Amino acid sequence: MTSEGAIVGVGLDIGATKTLGLVVGSDGEIRAEVREPTEPGAEGIVRTAARVVDLLRATSDDALVGPVGVGIPGLVDVEQGAVKHAVNLGVDGEWLPLRRLLSERLGVPVVVENDVNAATLGAAALSGANDLVYLSIGTGLAAGLVLEGRLRRGAQGAAGEIGHVPVDPAGALCTCGQRGCLETVASGSALAAAWPSAGEPAAQALFAAARAGDDHAIEVRTRFAAGVAAAVRVLGLSVDVQTVVLGGGVAQLGEPLLDAVAEALRAQAVDSPFLASLDLAGRLSVVPADYPVAAVGAAMLGRPEMLDR
Amino acid sequence: MTSEGAIVGVGLDIGATKTLGLVVGSDGEIRAEVREPTEPGAEGIVRTAARVVDLLRATSDDALVGPVGVGIPGLVDVEQGAVKHAVNLGVDGEWLPLRRLLSERLGVPVVVENDVNAATLGAAALSGANDLVYLSIGTGLAAGLVLEGRLRRGAQGAAGEIGHVPVDPAGALCTCGQRGCLETVASGSALAAAWPSAGEPAAQALFAAARAGDDHAIEVRTRFAAGVAAAVRVLGLSVDVQTVVLGGGVAQLGEPLLDAVAEALRAQAVDSPFLASLDLAGRLSVVPADYPVAAVGAAMLGRPEMLDR
Repeated sequence: MTSEGAIVGVGLDIGATKTLGLVVGSDGEIRAEVREPTEPGAEGIVRTAARVVDLLRATSDDALVGPVGVGIPGLVDVEQGAVKHAVNLGVDGEWLPLRRLLSERLGVPVVVENDVNAATLGAAALSGANDLVYLSIGTGLAAGLVLEGRLRRGAQGAAGEIGHVPVDPAGALCTCGQRGCLETVASGSALAAAWPSAGEPAAQALFAAARAGDDHAIEVRTRFAAGVAAAVRVLGLSVDVQTVVLGGGVAQLGEPLLDAVAEALRAQAVDSPFLASLDLAGRLSVVPADYPVAAVGAAMLGRPEMLDR
Repeated sequence: MTSEGAIVGVGLDIGATKTLGLVVGSDGEIRAEVREPTEPGAEGIVRTAARVVDLLRATSDDALVGPVGVGIPGLVDVEQGAVKHAVNLGVDGEWLPLRRLLSERLGVPVVVENDVNAATLGAAALSGANDLVYLSIGTGLAAGLVLEGRLRRGAQGAAGEIGHVPVDPAGALCTCGQRGCLETVASGSALAAAWPSAGEPAAQALFAAARAGDDHAIEVRTRFAAGVAAAVRVLGLSVDVQTVVLGGGVAQLGEPLLDAVAEALRAQAVDSPFLASLDLAGRLSVVPADYPVAAVGAAMLGRPEMLDR
């Protein structure tokens, strides 16, 4: 089966442990998928990414001659296609000119974007909404914004950095240096601190214990959900999008996470007719478990016409 | 002097005590100005607005045959041109179809917008920025957003309602029913409660006392400025605009307000290299005292081509 005429995007999600590559059709359908362990460091990242694209080219029925979109953690200079502060990938001090290196290696244009922003485009494709917030609850907490169909990066790339909005002067010290940031309550690292668990991820262990009726677990879950709800509220009262998609590692919890956050939002609105009228709980959805939202969004980065569907 | 060919906008700022009408040139210059006491209630508002436009028509050298833009407090349905919950104007229970009534009376199209949003357009014209936040510190606290040249109202008209973002679980009860909202610290009503003063507005009395070295006044001013700074931080970390314009009644304080808020922003960033790197203090400006920012913006509502300058 050949389909040389089809518009397809190639998207990479470069993570600390693995690099996922996808071929995505203009209908959002995933047509090919490759997953490789990420080699750390500047050279390792480029080598891994190039290998993933080579494997996609070898296995895909589509002619992959178009641009490649890349989502990567850290600070991304989109104009330059360069990455910094991707600490878990072994890239920190100097800018890594990822676009240039990868483009030279692959012979096609490359577009590089922060992974949360890439995932936000994927969430837009998934939800069919062109005005939404993607709330990434991973090790940290950050949001991506698509407003009226356009990715909002902000003047200094800080749009959506609501993990560092302080909401409690008596809260915990945040890694950013402030106190009581949303990230100190509503993140995977906050969960790991509040509910230490051996093998299993903290989120799964906590929610299982709460479901089993453990009072302390219920209390910790309630506090976490209230933190996520507070983040949704900040976004609701600043940009007021109709669609809020929960994603990131913690969102692998799926519906139980959605239910807990929706309940927390309703609880916060109990005494506030104003807040209740906004029905923030009714705006929530969650990325389906294992849906590769960042790689799908990365594929669209290289194919902006796919965003205009 | 006649100038029939000039593009001019007519803008009204309908407030609880007065209605201000302006003729504004496409260069932002104020060409005529009329001010009348606002008669309360639905009929009174329409009668006052019509009288102001009649007076502008009588005094202006320009042919005022184009649309009239109106900024008014309360909940505004922009599609319908209707107003509700403008409690201080005596309009509460039912929608007031202001656009229809005023348009019938004046014989020209009318555009109605919330006064903070109108002022945001005026602030955009004043600052020359097309991506900015206008932070209105009046009796309450609310922001208006112009993002990439477009006024952002939000899915339910709640964009910029950051006065009701809670930032302190131990804070005061807010009129909205939540606890510790930004508005309970960073608003004219919060100032009036914290620094009761007879004749003079609380803000002027407080800042004068602080300038005179009164320790308690300095403490109250610091707390207020920290609240405004927290609002700026929420906006910086959500939409990350380069320009933040302080306005509203309390901003009549001018430079001393700007200085206090900038100092508070720098203090909040002392322990956070991340926050310091955003230089939120450097993004601030304040509307010049007595500049009619809402009426100027209202004039542009009726003349959208003026926004594209």
